[in-house]
Amino acid sequence: MKMSKLAIIGLGHVGSAVLAQAMAMNLASEIVCIDINEKVAHGEALDATHATPCTYVPGMKVYSGDFSQCKDADIIICSAGPSILPGEKLDRLILAERNVKVISEIMTEVTKYTKNTPFIMITNPLDVTTYLAATKFGYEKGKLFGTGTTLETLRLKRIVANHYNVDAKDVQGFMLGEHGNSAFPAWSTISIGSVRLADLDKYYDHNCEFDKKAIAQEVVNTAYDVLLSKGWTNTGIAMGACRLARAVIFNERCVTPVSTPLDGEYGLTDVALSLPSIVGANGVEKRLAIDLPEDELKALQFSAESIKTVLRANKLID
Amino acid sequence: MKMSKLAIIGLGHVGSAVLAQAMAMNLASEIVCIDINEKVAHGEALDATHATPCTYVPGMKVYSGDFSQCKDADIIICSAGPSILPGEKLDRLILAERNVKVISEIMTEVTKYTKNTPFIMITNPLDVTTYLAATKFGYEKGKLFGTGTTLETLRLKRIVANHYNVDAKDVQGFMLGEHGNSAFPAWSTISIGSVRLADLDKYYDHNCEFDKKAIAQEVVNTAYDVLLSKGWTNTGIAMGACRLARAVIFNERCVTPVSTPLDGEYGLTDVALSLPSIVGANGVEKRLAIDLPEDELKALQFSAESIKTVLRANKLID
Amino acid sequence: MKMSKLAIIGLGHVGSAVLAQAMAMNLASEIVCIDINEKVAHGEALDATHATPCTYVPGMKVYSGDFSQCKDADIIICSAGPSILPGEKLDRLILAERNVKVISEIMTEVTKYTKNTPFIMITNPLDVTTYLAATKFGYEKGKLFGTGTTLETLRLKRIVANHYNVDAKDVQGFMLGEHGNSAFPAWSTISIGSVRLADLDKYYDHNCEFDKKAIAQEVVNTAYDVLLSKGWTNTGIAMGACRLARAVIFNERCVTPVSTPLDGEYGLTDVALSLPSIVGANGVEKRLAIDLPEDELKALQFSAESIKTVLRANKLID
Amino acid sequence: MKMSKLAIIGLGHVGSAVLAQAMAMNLASEIVCIDINEKVAHGEALDATHATPCTYVPGMKVYSGDFSQCKDADIIICSAGPSILPGEKLDRLILAERNVKVISEIMTEVTKYTKNTPFIMITNPLDVTTYLAATKFGYEKGKLFGTGTTLETLRLKRIVANHYNVDAKDVQGFMLGEHGNSAFPAWSTISIGSVRLADLDKYYDHNCEFDKKAIAQEVVNTAYDVLLSKGWTNTGIAMGACRLARAVIFNERCVTPVSTPLDGEYGLTDVALSLPSIVGANGVEKRLAIDLPEDELKALQFSAESIKTVLRANKLID
Repeated sequence: MKMSKLAIIGLGHVGSAVLAQAMAMNLASEIVCIDINEKVAHGEALDATHATPCTYVPGMKVYSGDFSQCKDADIIICSAGPSILPGEKLDRLILAERNVKVISEIMTEVTKYTKNTPFIMITNPLDVTTYLAATKFGYEKGKLFGTGTTLETLRLKRIVANHYNVDAKDVQGFMLGEHGNSAFPAWSTISIGSVRLADLDKYYDHNCEFDKKAIAQEVVNTAYDVLLSKGWTNTGIAMGACRLARAVIFNERCVTPVSTPLDGEYGLTDVALSLPSIVGANGVEKRLAIDLPEDELKALQFSAESIKTVLRANKLID
Repeated sequence: MKMSKLAIIGLGHVGSAVLAQAMAMNLASEIVCIDINEKVAHGEALDATHATPCTYVPGMKVYSGDFSQCKDADIIICSAGPSILPGEKLDRLILAERNVKVISEIMTEVTKYTKNTPFIMITNPLDVTTYLAATKFGYEKGKLFGTGTTLETLRLKRIVANHYNVDAKDVQGFMLGEHGNSAFPAWSTISIGSVRLADLDKYYDHNCEFDKKAIAQEVVNTAYDVLLSKGWTNTGIAMGACRLARAVIFNERCVTPVSTPLDGEYGLTDVALSLPSIVGANGVEKRLAIDLPEDELKALQFSAESIKTVLRANKLID
Repeated sequence: MKMSKLAIIGLGHVGSAVLAQAMAMNLASEIVCIDINEKVAHGEALDATHATPCTYVPGMKVYSGDFSQCKDADIIICSAGPSILPGEKLDRLILAERNVKVISEIMTEVTKYTKNTPFIMITNPLDVTTYLAATKFGYEKGKLFGTGTTLETLRLKRIVANHYNVDAKDVQGFMLGEHGNSAFPAWSTISIGSVRLADLDKYYDHNCEFDKKAIAQEVVNTAYDVLLSKGWTNTGIAMGACRLARAVIFNERCVTPVSTPLDGEYGLTDVALSLPSIVGANGVEKRLAIDLPEDELKALQFSAESIKTVLRANKLID
Repeated sequence: MKMSKLAIIGLGHVGSAVLAQAMAMNLASEIVCIDINEKVAHGEALDATHATPCTYVPGMKVYSGDFSQCKDADIIICSAGPSILPGEKLDRLILAERNVKVISEIMTEVTKYTKNTPFIMITNPLDVTTYLAATKFGYEKGKLFGTGTTLETLRLKRIVANHYNVDAKDVQGFMLGEHGNSAFPAWSTISIGSVRLADLDKYYDHNCEFDKKAIAQEVVNTAYDVLLSKGWTNTGIAMGACRLARAVIFNERCVTPVSTPLDGEYGLTDVALSLPSIVGANGVEKRLAIDLPEDELKALQFSAESIKTVLRANKLID
């Protein structure tokens, strides 16, 4: 019997939160922790093994190892590379430069062992690392994708749910585009319990006006709020990544925005960004280039351009 | 309908891991995060709320607040105060001095609002803070207890399970005494699948001799291994604390070693340390002063003396 | 510490499935089983207690008792009364007559002990029993509601998800009206991943035409298919009821169709049926009388009339 | 990516409870239901699919099929065949005759497709069907085992836990021998929190004397109590079987009593019965012929003889 095996690459704040969440969700019977800092991978795996004797915890194996462990993994989640830290100048170009190097090294290693294991990228700048990893190392199309605007979408749902005092799971719709400052709420996709945006005030309680511009800004702000308050963000994104992993492992074919290199959708190529996608056993099974109103199309194109600038600066596209 | 409410005091590495684990276990429908650094509590709570729109996550409320939130909490977990960091001289006295102050301040605040809500202490030096918190602020007897040798016990089970290649949940027995260097394996309590220590080799696979002294040392070493490898320990203890919280919330009456002030057991008073205890809705419902062989009794007394030294140095006992 | 307590009334096929599901979801730390056939309640509770020594099962208490146990329950789920059996003439009036008597007796008992504990009705004919129980015994408004078209909605989602090969959790929308033959798909509320019904073919895979009439019929047929194949239906409805109970216990405020007596919505009174509702700690916190197109309005009115016929026949309305 | 797949053979009261429990524990991403009554398998699978659109339920596939579905299953659970019903004369020989035929037909079919997929037998008389299925069809040694005294052990733990008012998960020890009337408590293996039987009264609360004979009888009686009260038993055994399946799927190597054909242990051959065993990815990885005191040895031999009588009557041994 083949055990199910998850490989986590990068055991920093995000990776260790992914590890804890993956264990809590019983995502796999084996979890291997991989980090260029072998001590950190070792320490995180060891700490995790101290949780497994507890009565409610399945007897899963958690251990550290090198990239060769990806060979028989069923799914890979990558959260390697430095993040922007509070106090640092928030320079995406500098971060991109660093992490393009990190991800290049990682993919060189990973692709020695597999080019078709479902692979979920979390490393920032997300769309840049996703584009790089998905296109430059011969990885099977669709199998590698980035969490993208998963987190922005969760945040938007949280904010809208708070505004109307309903369960955030009942808020539908997506943030699309770049994972980062140019992500935008696709307002045309938003609904609560099948009630579209324009009619929400009619049915749901609220204390103040729903100001779309302010809400969009709050999605960005809440990220910085977390970052500046606790020093990093990890709980939300770890849950988002594990939810996507569940979709892959159970072949759920869930509809959710994730980042993949585009193939002409909306006239866009040479860029990865988040569109609603069907996520299943083969990673991104399909991208949905849904009809968007003019302003959202513009926002998408702006977002694409914004990502391309960084791709170009890093010589990943011409 | 009264919602169940968990208060977490101290949102550092341990507290934030407790938060994630408590959410994963659906321990409560409301979780309030309290920290003297209000920004940290705010950031952790906010990040956690970004996870709740996910399809598999109950619509629980997570937020930050002040000590008055303890008033209607159903259970409190305290992981406040600094830890020993790698590189720091591992001076328990200095740590004790600091955290006696921290816990005194916290208990002064908490007891303004409740003196009988089940309260699980994690802050180190654990037995000192537990003694202080349980005895100096009029808290109802038994309601406040420390995780104690919960973590050492989990580690011992992990190590013994690895040695004999069995599920760690099937290793029975306890580490007792101090949470810290003088904790000791109560070998007389150890069994696997009802096979006592002396007979384990007869039934279970093993590659080398079972060296009790070496195993006892490995329990200590593995803690430092985690600490020095990743910089702190949190995954194992967070699971242990949440497992205890589950026992309280569901009134499980589980039998497990936790720290409480002794009442003459083994002739010991004026000290808190870990003995096997029944943990239920009222916290520690009963302590079990089980018969121990001579060498384990000595180890217990040594451990008690070791804790008393720190209690005395901090003028908590005469 | 007050434990959370669930009371299940009626331990037939549905009630026993609710019990198993409630335990699996850790809905409460105490579950009391109540049935006029005390032996059945006793047997189900006893069998369930044989599951609790398992390593993955919280130490919850499951036992049988009488209606006085409702006094301190936090939530009540009622699945009492006979169902239509395969082979029986499917006469709703006869079933109504029987269960009006059953539910009258139950509510007379329950309301001796509580008139405001959140109460989820499953007994058929659902809208009749809900109307009766919610209006004739002084129960606090909103606190008692019926699962209603919860099950039809789950079935519709399953069928639509199968058609377009996506995760059923990503199908949004509601079946409304009667729980029974006159339930209707509110097509105007249907979407998958924010794509409305008219555009689904454009984005999602499908092997054949989406025939709304056929799909609506299939929702009805699949119920009979289950009933005639296994002899009863319980798995789906048990999950639906426990999902609603989770919404109450965690005050989720989820948006979902459940049955309550109407208060003039769409000009309708003197009838209970399912409308999208916000379900939280107080049961149905709000009903949403969403705008419906002409044909759906008609279907709703037809459904209301259909229920009223049975209410009248049972002298529950004039 | 290979999805994990569970096959359930026999969808009666036990099989349908196994299905619900397996779904609740997320044991597999695909579950196939197999029954000679194809309609029942179809109905149970269909009803289960109506639960999967719920927000908390993974998008697993549940469907009915024939034995060829065992080909790529990762684990098989068999609960086929009639049970003893209340009112029926409780004649084990008649039941054996019937189910020897049922299991022979099933194994003939299953082994067309696999002889090494981990296979958990539940059908009664358990030790007879296990002996038959494990030895007569070329199944790989250890891969097929019966739940055996899993259920008696759970019941014993429940009863002992009730007596001493502790969490049943903290009661250690085994019922051994036949799954049925000659099962016996191996009192020498019993402990609570590492306290052996003889000392339990010293440490744990109790209202009356611990009468070993009466307790042993109560384990038998509680089975009949469930059976006569609700008409069948399924909740406890379904949890037990799924707990064993978890051990296999996660290669937990848990130590638990299950039934396999003996190989000379205690001088016994030509019989299957329950001994403490290590259960992991390969099914029963090892049997533990632990030292037993004289009276327990006698009980074991009596139990073996009792099973052999039925095996002989069915010409399964000479």
